[in-house]
Amino acid sequence: MPLDELSIIDRFFRPLAGEGAYGLLDDAGSIAVPDDSDLVVSTDMVAESVHFLPGDPPGTVAQKALRVNLSDLAAKGARPLCYTLSLGVSRKVDERWLASFADGLRCDQEAFGLSLLGGDTVGVLGGVVASITAFGLAPKGRMVHRMGGSPGDALFVSGTCGRSNIGLAILKHEPGPWDALSPDERAGLVESYRVPDPRVALAHVLAELAAAAMDVSDGLVGDCDKLAVASGCSATIDADKVPFAMKVGNDAAFAARLLSGGEDYEILAAISPTNEGQFRAAAHAAGVPVARIGTLTPGNAPSRVLFKGAPLRLSRRAYIHGAT
Amino acid sequence: MPLDELSIIDRFFRPLAGEGAYGLLDDAGSIAVPDDSDLVVSTDMVAESVHFLPGDPPGTVAQKALRVNLSDLAAKGARPLCYTLSLGVSRKVDERWLASFADGLRCDQEAFGLSLLGGDTVGVLGGVVASITAFGLAPKGRMVHRMGGSPGDALFVSGTCGRSNIGLAILKHEPGPWDALSPDERAGLVESYRVPDPRVALAHVLAELAAAAMDVSDGLVGDCDKLAVASGCSATIDADKVPFAMKVGNDAAFAARLLSGGEDYEILAAISPTNEGQFRAAAHAAGVPVARIGTLTPGNAPSRVLFKGAPLRLSRRAYIHGAT
Repeated sequence: MPLDELSIIDRFFRPLAGEGAYGLLDDAGSIAVPDDSDLVVSTDMVAESVHFLPGDPPGTVAQKALRVNLSDLAAKGARPLCYTLSLGVSRKVDERWLASFADGLRCDQEAFGLSLLGGDTVGVLGGVVASITAFGLAPKGRMVHRMGGSPGDALFVSGTCGRSNIGLAILKHEPGPWDALSPDERAGLVESYRVPDPRVALAHVLAELAAAAMDVSDGLVGDCDKLAVASGCSATIDADKVPFAMKVGNDAAFAARLLSGGEDYEILAAISPTNEGQFRAAAHAAGVPVARIGTLTPGNAPSRVLFKGAPLRLSRRAYIHGAT
Repeated sequence: MPLDELSIIDRFFRPLAGEGAYGLLDDAGSIAVPDDSDLVVSTDMVAESVHFLPGDPPGTVAQKALRVNLSDLAAKGARPLCYTLSLGVSRKVDERWLASFADGLRCDQEAFGLSLLGGDTVGVLGGVVASITAFGLAPKGRMVHRMGGSPGDALFVSGTCGRSNIGLAILKHEPGPWDALSPDERAGLVESYRVPDPRVALAHVLAELAAAAMDVSDGLVGDCDKLAVASGCSATIDADKVPFAMKVGNDAAFAARLLSGGEDYEILAAISPTNEGQFRAAAHAAGVPVARIGTLTPGNAPSRVLFKGAPLRLSRRAYIHGAT
């Protein structure tokens, strides 16, 4: 890497710095938290060959690193404020790579209304790694937790299930039902793997109306288990109500795959029956499609998943990231 | 790596979680900032073969990752509160490694009074990387910046200069004046490279009395340049007043090496003449040795360094981390 850290900061990251960052010319930043808000903090690291592929465009790597955190903040009812970035750069990283990476951050800063607070850039011997800690503000006392759901609450999920799972399969040239899709549809699914769409617009709705919520990053069924356990409940998921990324027809194995695939970055929310109508309306007003896919139930058993009226057999419930 | 992320969190990191971490069972943590404080945020990443050596004990890797951030917080006048950790684990990382790593964190949490707020663990293909974002509280409006110094301010540095530089040379079997030291002295210098000693005890003194401060991580002379530039000043350093880690005698090249070597993690502070006596007394009361090594001067030239009364020739002014 011909560039030293100071040059990298000067040329690529200083233009991204915002309030409290002191132009990235100090040892630390500061965050002012308004009296009517709570500060919510999420941290996630993405690594080459694990969360993105060596050939992925640097701009999408940056966007994914940021967006997986914005997804967490949204699920907690928090709007984005700022973030810190630790970037481990491998030998292949040159000025062009960095310019594209920084441009991805710049686009998303504008799209989601946040700025860079601070960071660190170091050379690493392996692949590129990027760790982002993102900060958001939730209305005071209204941060949404995984706990807080009750038996009888409706389970809603935003968007569709399995887009990223299929996108990665396409990138890896795995044969499957997606081969029948049009090139545009396939490109759209690949884009969902590379650049997830965090449901930032749903944050204020969740803060106001959700009993519990989380983002779906490790598979819908496994994440539903986590929300139910945290809430002291079990759950039933009606897979026929899940808006899948592709038609699954009667293919139970394909449905199971998408229900346990990772990186949807959609929102799973438990909504009390009294709030259900208002939640649907507010989500619609926010421009976020949501579907009621199940119910929290008494007990502590793993979630029951029904497909065409019968229990669905799942060989795994959650997605574990491994080197691809 | 035989362990999945959830098992790693359960076994090694959950016991470290504190207030606002929700037992690491949620998507995000939260930080409550008292009305009389400002939240200060530092982020630093350490990488194998760059900031630590492949054979270093995992506990010291954890401590170094945390302490480089605590050093930044201390320089800004902030006492530690909590931190997030993103850990990239290579294939060599097993249960024993993780237990030792977590134990290093536990020791330092107790020593410095902070807790784990959240984190992320991912497998990486290269060496281990650890990114920590640390949070501290400074008295409201009293965060200390690099800017803020004025011509005539005294420059103080804590501790000694060059311990880590010599420690790394010993670890790398580089021949030098340190060969004449006792085994205990050499072991102490190696320890300084592996586990820096952040000047947390000096934070409240700096918040009260420093015009400007920073931590010395990239070499005393280069960092002095940075503080002077940020303050719109130049500086003079009297190298004969610098408390070196070893006697340098008349060896100008050795003095230059230590003055531009990295990872001291000491504090460089600009103190106005009216505060100088009080600063010396308060630092002494806090148990932190400090020495007056120079003065901020008018102008914008790079810092002048005098050694035995003559200008010292420096082949480099700052330390740039590279693969070792």
